[in-house]
Amino acid sequence: MTTPPATTTLTQLAAGLADQAVNIVDLTNTLSASTPTLRLPEPFSNLDDFSLQNVARFDEAGPMWAHNNFSQGEHVGTHIDAPIHWISGRDGKDVAQIEPERLVGPAVGLDFSTESAQDPDFLIEVEHIQAWVAEHGPLPENGWLLFRTGWDQYAHDQAAFLNADATGSHTPGFSAECSRWLAEETTISGIGVETVGIDQGNAAELDPPFPMHYHLLGNDKYGITSLQNLAKLPTRGAVIIVSPLPIVGGTASPCRVFALVEGA
Amino acid sequence: MTTPPATTTLTQLAAGLADQAVNIVDLTNTLSASTPTLRLPEPFSNLDDFSLQNVARFDEAGPMWAHNNFSQGEHVGTHIDAPIHWISGRDGKDVAQIEPERLVGPAVGLDFSTESAQDPDFLIEVEHIQAWVAEHGPLPENGWLLFRTGWDQYAHDQAAFLNADATGSHTPGFSAECSRWLAEETTISGIGVETVGIDQGNAAELDPPFPMHYHLLGNDKYGITSLQNLAKLPTRGAVIIVSPLPIVGGTASPCRVFALVEGA
Ligand SMILES: [Mn+2]
Ligand SMILES: [Mn+2]
Repeated sequence: MTTPPATTTLTQLAAGLADQAVNIVDLTNTLSASTPTLRLPEPFSNLDDFSLQNVARFDEAGPMWAHNNFSQGEHVGTHIDAPIHWISGRDGKDVAQIEPERLVGPAVGLDFSTESAQDPDFLIEVEHIQAWVAEHGPLPENGWLLFRTGWDQYAHDQAAFLNADATGSHTPGFSAECSRWLAEETTISGIGVETVGIDQGNAAELDPPFPMHYHLLGNDKYGITSLQNLAKLPTRGAVIIVSPLPIVGGTASPCRVFALVEGA
Repeated sequence: MTTPPATTTLTQLAAGLADQAVNIVDLTNTLSASTPTLRLPEPFSNLDDFSLQNVARFDEAGPMWAHNNFSQGEHVGTHIDAPIHWISGRDGKDVAQIEPERLVGPAVGLDFSTESAQDPDFLIEVEHIQAWVAEHGPLPENGWLLFRTGWDQYAHDQAAFLNADATGSHTPGFSAECSRWLAEETTISGIGVETVGIDQGNAAELDPPFPMHYHLLGNDKYGITSLQNLAKLPTRGAVIIVSPLPIVGGTASPCRVFALVEGA
């Protein structure tokens, strides 16, 4: 019996990327002035939308180059919330302090698009997660739960994305108990959603208000919002790379999110 | 003879990350008001430094949360230059259009820290790359060349990082011919450096001026600047993930750059 050739994990990964045995799915929404953003009611303050400001473009200020400034809220576009964003995590990590080992790891996909299409106020409960575990196996240690709701279909339309009326914003989320359970009784690194925030649109009315923010960020776990293309992920087996900018003192950062998936 | 268990590339990667057979090296400088930036002479226009502006912090504007706006030049901090940054690539891709398949791939480390310490105006020549290839094997197809110069030791000190005097800025870079050769005669995805730009400090005096910008961006290859921790990478065998924000119309973007390396 011969020993198989010593192919390392990373030479195999590089070879897989080259021959498309491993493919990359981009889970990130693009950044422009029309990227949809959260709209908080008075008296709360809102963040700035994304803005690109040209400084030079093949002119006297830059004869051979073009370059721009940009500005935005930390929580605009596909982004990750850090513990210091929330009152429960205010003594915790800023976005630059989240360890890379928490940002790169296994990801599983949980599909609640049918329920969310039937009821835009749908709340994911502990029982839904437990049913998923019974069917698909344990939640990934130090990994990510990515919740598909189909909401990424609205990500280029501010009004549809927020789905607001006189009774508030109607987008799916998590019950308070499910938020607490995921934060306190699992060993995940965090959760990702397709909606504008990690809580339901009307989560100010839950107890505690915004329970996923409260529990997740208070337990050194992290949340990613405005993800795209979750429908292209397998239920199990993806590895994701979450890449916030290391903003010192940042409560969040826009981030690129790539998923590595096995090829067809 | 038994078939070995069907371990896929990605299950092996996830297991390696969990047991530290695969480690993550963060190649990114942090973003703050003191992140060192390029300073162009008159009449050229400079970009804004990084700035974080608080909007709410556990107060009336945000009783349960803190959040901020931020602003910066696209070319501030660890960042990637896209083809439309330069006159030679102005009809090419913006930073959002660079395919993920070009941003994730094999990386090799080339060490010119000794030469750069002896001569801060050191120019890397084709012969240096060819000598590296003779010793270490071919350049990685669709991969990244990461040039260590030791310059990351100055990355928290604006004056030392730019190393400017009456005769200009003295930081290492590439000859015009080496820039052309890498851009036209190799199949790399791009190059990464530790200095503030992908060209030498005084590259305005080369022919063409800023030859790495001119050739690389004109040939749909990309350049990353202000990298850190290249000393922690192996000569061969790393996989890097370059994660610019998908800024529509962006000539560059600050980006997180992670390298996956085999554990000790
Ligand atoms: Mn947020
Ligand atoms: Mn640049």
